[in-house]
Amino acid sequence: MGTLSGVRVLDLSRVLAGPYCTSLLADLGADVIKVEQPGKGDDARSLGPFRGDESVYFAMLNRGKRSITLNLRDADGVAVLRELVRGADVVVENYRPGVAQRLGVTYEDLKEHNEGLVYLSISGFGQTGPLATAPAYDLIVQAMSGLMEATGFPDGPPTRIGESFGDLVAGLFGAWSVSAALFDRERTGKGTHLDVSMFECLVSMQVTAQSLLQVNGRTPGRVGNRHPVSTPFDAYQAADGLVVIAVANEAIFARLAAMMDLPGLVDDPRFASDPLRTDNEPEMRAVIESWASTRTVQDIIAEAGLSGVPAAPLWDLEAALGSAHSQERGLVANIDDPRVGSFDSVPQPVRFSGHRQMVDGHSPALGQDTNDVLGESLGLDSDRIEALRQQGVL
Amino acid sequence: MGTLSGVRVLDLSRVLAGPYCTSLLADLGADVIKVEQPGKGDDARSLGPFRGDESVYFAMLNRGKRSITLNLRDADGVAVLRELVRGADVVVENYRPGVAQRLGVTYEDLKEHNEGLVYLSISGFGQTGPLATAPAYDLIVQAMSGLMEATGFPDGPPTRIGESFGDLVAGLFGAWSVSAALFDRERTGKGTHLDVSMFECLVSMQVTAQSLLQVNGRTPGRVGNRHPVSTPFDAYQAADGLVVIAVANEAIFARLAAMMDLPGLVDDPRFASDPLRTDNEPEMRAVIESWASTRTVQDIIAEAGLSGVPAAPLWDLEAALGSAHSQERGLVANIDDPRVGSFDSVPQPVRFSGHRQMVDGHSPALGQDTNDVLGESLGLDSDRIEALRQQGVL
Repeated sequence: MGTLSGVRVLDLSRVLAGPYCTSLLADLGADVIKVEQPGKGDDARSLGPFRGDESVYFAMLNRGKRSITLNLRDADGVAVLRELVRGADVVVENYRPGVAQRLGVTYEDLKEHNEGLVYLSISGFGQTGPLATAPAYDLIVQAMSGLMEATGFPDGPPTRIGESFGDLVAGLFGAWSVSAALFDRERTGKGTHLDVSMFECLVSMQVTAQSLLQVNGRTPGRVGNRHPVSTPFDAYQAADGLVVIAVANEAIFARLAAMMDLPGLVDDPRFASDPLRTDNEPEMRAVIESWASTRTVQDIIAEAGLSGVPAAPLWDLEAALGSAHSQERGLVANIDDPRVGSFDSVPQPVRFSGHRQMVDGHSPALGQDTNDVLGESLGLDSDRIEALRQQGVL
Repeated sequence: MGTLSGVRVLDLSRVLAGPYCTSLLADLGADVIKVEQPGKGDDARSLGPFRGDESVYFAMLNRGKRSITLNLRDADGVAVLRELVRGADVVVENYRPGVAQRLGVTYEDLKEHNEGLVYLSISGFGQTGPLATAPAYDLIVQAMSGLMEATGFPDGPPTRIGESFGDLVAGLFGAWSVSAALFDRERTGKGTHLDVSMFECLVSMQVTAQSLLQVNGRTPGRVGNRHPVSTPFDAYQAADGLVVIAVANEAIFARLAAMMDLPGLVDDPRFASDPLRTDNEPEMRAVIESWASTRTVQDIIAEAGLSGVPAAPLWDLEAALGSAHSQERGLVANIDDPRVGSFDSVPQPVRFSGHRQMVDGHSPALGQDTNDVLGESLGLDSDRIEALRQQGVL
């Protein structure tokens, strides 16, 4: 039994923010039913990378979900959705604001059929305000949130996070707020409309920059990989790559100095305190790199481990997934999908009482569960379903 | 009534990941009681930026919480904690794995006093595995997760996200899993131990890179601010700064070409399709920047709005917070804290049925609620409390 077993989610969402949210809910055992446009389906079905004609990206984000087709531009399609809402707990949508209104599938429309409905809307800028209907690609939201301006080097350009965190963080805030609203509904019976904005999620998480802006009257700007206060606390050049060394206090600095066989550094007037080291950061870097550049990353990490100096390699995703730690933790799950074949995937990352909750299900072919779901939930027989299909509703 | 009103959280956590998690729970109305070390308290109390002697960073992350002091290195302190657990719903800790065991405050220790307890552990690498006790600063976790290797420009170094997303994302996964576990407890009465790893949270979110690794056998590497597939979809140099232009399909490219007064681009053999434009990205950039560099960002955004071309400015956090959209959405809350004075803060970003849930409370002085909480919850009178204080327990 999963933590969210028995929760039924009607998922009207497409591509990333919404589907990522419902993949987290599905991993905890929720019954997620994708409601897709007949013929075409979720746009992510045609986003690469592909194996044959099938998107691995789609398969990864939609494992363990069911799929029905329903034409929501047709009044009969909307009528079917409203019937399904009676037996559902959660609706998730990430239309551009205004579209749900045109289709007649807003929270206001649907709650008449289910007073306890939890209805999640994810959009770029939220359901209201002057930017509500502005285009909201991840790059645009990252650019406007302040995060790109804060990421990168002082002498380099603003930099996008190398993954669509605008979408993903909004999906995660969505999964959180749905779960909290479900808890509250157990006590009160009341439903909720949740309005999640990608822009606002990214702005809200900039807690360090917010506090610095309050006190200094300006944001700190780009500092590369340096710690805002402590030095040395950065990535340094070793013989065969970069290594992170993280010195947060004087005791650790003394250990680093001893490890480099330069114990006198702790009394050096340029380096004797954290503020001095920060003032003399280029010299500090030169000292460390003249030592590190003659050693491999692996040797430095091994020495640092023995010396009690926090240090770490820079891994790419492949190294992170393949590490002994990830193996022992069972971080990666293999899914044998009938459409795209075998692939590795990292499900939701939380252990629940030692148990890694995740669905081991396959991603659905477009509309593969239409007959089952309409049969089970609405009691429609196959003749009636076929008639709806002929009519273009399914 | 908040969504989590009536939920009592004992918060043993320090600095960022745990306190960020419980700030989200507090915003939804949970009664969060910080349990702090006598004399010293949460390390974040001594992390800048400061106003006078008080940390604005601490005040922002701990608004609306209460504070008690309790010496958990003393058996009587642990005994008091166990009594408090009887009346609590959630415990949150972010000790280095092993510390809770030494103190006698693990899930196993505490659930004997409350079978329905939801107990959240946040750590760098999780409670088990070879890296469990490795040092876990945000920089280290970002470096090992693969995210730094994926962020930045092809000819530049791996780049840290300019905010502590390793901590913050783990805190958000923590708040999600606590909320889901509370939902499940309402149905089953059962508690849960939640094990959240900063490293695993960041790895799990790299969904695009995971799918590319599966299909191509390697991660895509750093692509700067470019879209992995579509062109032009990047930040471009205008006369007075950078502007994002996001062309996701041929119709939008035709509008961009018309807007630049270069309608012939759509038939140009270098630019006639998205794959061609991606192959000829440097030439595409040169064409766009020779047009954009004679115009201001503001003019380009205005023209793009009229032309139906998605475009956006790069804002810093100050501009994002001050924008008309943020003002109209009520994104920023002003808190008049008795210790640090008035400051602006962005609380949890989700609207619940149109309502911005957040506590308008102040951050607590160290131990300010000790007498109240021990009085209310344990029925201790002021003589007994004073005796415990003399003994060094509080």
